Amino acid sequence: MKPLIQLGSLLFAGLFSVASIAQQSLLVEKQTFTLDEYTTHGGETIRDVKVGWEAYGELNEAKDNVILVTHFFSGNSHAAGKYTPDDAQAGYWDAIIGPGKAIDTNEFYVVSVDSLVNAYPNLPTVVTTGPASINPETGKPYGLDFPVVTIRDFVNVQKAVLESQGIDKLHAVIGASMGSLQAIEWAAAYPDWVERMVSVIGTASMDAWTIAGLEAWSQAIKLDPNWNAGDYYDGEAPLDGVTMAQALITHGAMYPTIFNQVAPAQQTLPTEGLATVNNQLPAAKWLYDSSRQRAPLADANHILYLVRANQLFIAGHQQTLKEGLNNISAKTLFLPASNDLLLMPYMAENAAEQLKALDKEVEIDHIDGPWGHLDGIYSIQQKADKLKFFLQ
Amino acid sequence: MKPLIQLGSLLFAGLFSVASIAQQSLLVEKQTFTLDEYTTHGGETIRDVKVGWEAYGELNEAKDNVILVTHFFSGNSHAAGKYTPDDAQAGYWDAIIGPGKAIDTNEFYVVSVDSLVNAYPNLPTVVTTGPASINPETGKPYGLDFPVVTIRDFVNVQKAVLESQGIDKLHAVIGASMGSLQAIEWAAAYPDWVERMVSVIGTASMDAWTIAGLEAWSQAIKLDPNWNAGDYYDGEAPLDGVTMAQALITHGAMYPTIFNQVAPAQQTLPTEGLATVNNQLPAAKWLYDSSRQRAPLADANHILYLVRANQLFIAGHQQTLKEGLNNISAKTLFLPASNDLLLMPYMAENAAEQLKALDKEVEIDHIDGPWGHLDGIYSIQQKADKLKFFLQ
Repeated sequence: MKPLIQLGSLLFAGLFSVASIAQQSLLVEKQTFTLDEYTTHGGETIRDVKVGWEAYGELNEAKDNVILVTHFFSGNSHAAGKYTPDDAQAGYWDAIIGPGKAIDTNEFYVVSVDSLVNAYPNLPTVVTTGPASINPETGKPYGLDFPVVTIRDFVNVQKAVLESQGIDKLHAVIGASMGSLQAIEWAAAYPDWVERMVSVIGTASMDAWTIAGLEAWSQAIKLDPNWNAGDYYDGEAPLDGVTMAQALITHGAMYPTIFNQVAPAQQTLPTEGLATVNNQLPAAKWLYDSSRQRAPLADANHILYLVRANQLFIAGHQQTLKEGLNNISAKTLFLPASNDLLLMPYMAENAAEQLKALDKEVEIDHIDGPWGHLDGIYSIQQKADKLKFFLQ
Repeated sequence: MKPLIQLGSLLFAGLFSVASIAQQSLLVEKQTFTLDEYTTHGGETIRDVKVGWEAYGELNEAKDNVILVTHFFSGNSHAAGKYTPDDAQAGYWDAIIGPGKAIDTNEFYVVSVDSLVNAYPNLPTVVTTGPASINPETGKPYGLDFPVVTIRDFVNVQKAVLESQGIDKLHAVIGASMGSLQAIEWAAAYPDWVERMVSVIGTASMDAWTIAGLEAWSQAIKLDPNWNAGDYYDGEAPLDGVTMAQALITHGAMYPTIFNQVAPAQQTLPTEGLATVNNQLPAAKWLYDSSRQRAPLADANHILYLVRANQLFIAGHQQTLKEGLNNISAKTLFLPASNDLLLMPYMAENAAEQLKALDKEVEIDHIDGPWGHLDGIYSIQQKADKLKFFLQ
């Protein structure tokens, strides 16, 4: 168990990276990839698409040692390493990506790409294209004129990044949460590419429960009058709505065990709350204040688009899930978190069962921990040996 | 398992009553109790306090056969029976309250009281006093001038209702969810009154996790510009905020098993969501549309006050929980629901453990079912024999 203070600061940092342990981290650089034109899975064309990407390790001559790491909702391509030796935190999966680690950068060339409509376009280390980007046709931000994109689009843009380097095969694709959707989408959409697929805290498709739960993240933003039907780039950003959305995300991604350890306790009569319903009790204030701090880094419309991409998800984007799953030829490994309240373990279990019923190669193993959904990030070290073995 | 259509209609009815089975229901009448003046636990005075109440069975001469039933957040005192034989639904616990049932009205006089600041003051069968009530000093609704009230205040008003009938002892107090807070508060605040206490899907105090979770129900309302800092009684009510609050409550009170059975499934590629982020996918639309239908029956400020009463809760309202629990002399029974995501079973388990450590008489038994938190309402029949025995 990590010390509480460290956990607290991680939460306040909010973008879910893990502090590097005693080990030295790789030094990495964010790079930018540009597509003059990209046609979405829905058939809309976007000009001048830019996304950021990072790589750890070296691409071999045969270009067959590539592992793609796909990122989660609030994350970006900074999966490992540091930008400068002075960075307080390394990339979010630094515990398993690096020289000699589970995903061994002495052996593998590990690539990660910032998603389209990334939730945090105002973070200086994120490069993305979405509603907040300038529409070349108008010279103004797209707003809701930006086409709805899907997990398949994230995959297609990643494929373009890889193809630009002459790559046409993935030793493995691995991702947590929204990253797991991209990983299984890769396996279902481009089976000839993908030899191994690891889904961490993931699912093969969205169910009604999860679609309705994610909707709250969007509704929070739409309720904020500053959202103004998506047209706020000349005025004030809907930071109250973004604050609530982020608070819902953080709370939903955690589990009471850890939350009650890091948030202010209420073990005595809380008199401050008696004055007025306008204030917040300490535990709520703690959550909402930390969320408010990072709200300016997010873009409200980007969150709406990202929610929609997740809500629309069905592996393979075929008419049925079965068709999509049937395309998969990769060896697959599912690592749900036992205490996950966001993408509950039944979702990965169902995916594994359905693949098994289709005679696919499937393994499933649960991550235990106090974090809930976030055990897929903070407790991933638990499965380091399992991962190392799976990648051989 | 009940047929799906019945479950669906229950949800759309939305106020969580159970349909009466083949049995005939009692006929009941809502009555009104008035206090000229009431001083809150926080020391504020409210004039002309009115609350509704219902009773099932007959008060015996010794006035020692009284069972008080305390209601949940979205509920009211309609715990059993029907107002007219034609009512589509009986009170929410009609399965266990009535002649010959677990809470046998041939033997017991069962009383239930509408809470202060009830969430649904616009429901014709609810009588309550709160921010939407007319302030006798101004002739206008209180709005946020209404004092913050606590679970202790709900108990104190119930006590006045009982005392007005010459009652000074409870054979038992039993409540689900917010009702369980009132039940344990009764046992801790007035131990001389309470012989037996049953906490269904309950807790002895709020923890940081739950306080922060409940905060979202309030934030949804506060984000709606029509809320106008609580001053909306001359204009449009903040129904968008109330709709979101209710959607959060319904979703949080359920469990994926049942939700995925009753909400529209998404098993094929959901093309409708590709057009714009402005629309909702079927599962979300189902939840939010049903929530919007009943939003006019609720009052936004009442929900804020009710959330606050819950967030402030600590059994006994002493300086520490231990002090409060130590006051209890009642026999206690805890009935958490195994799949509860709102007041998770660890909360009742902790309460039971703490009472045991204080040498109190405690029993705990879990309700299993597909409903989650709502198993405390819809699956209560499972514990009918246990309850009957406990009440003897």
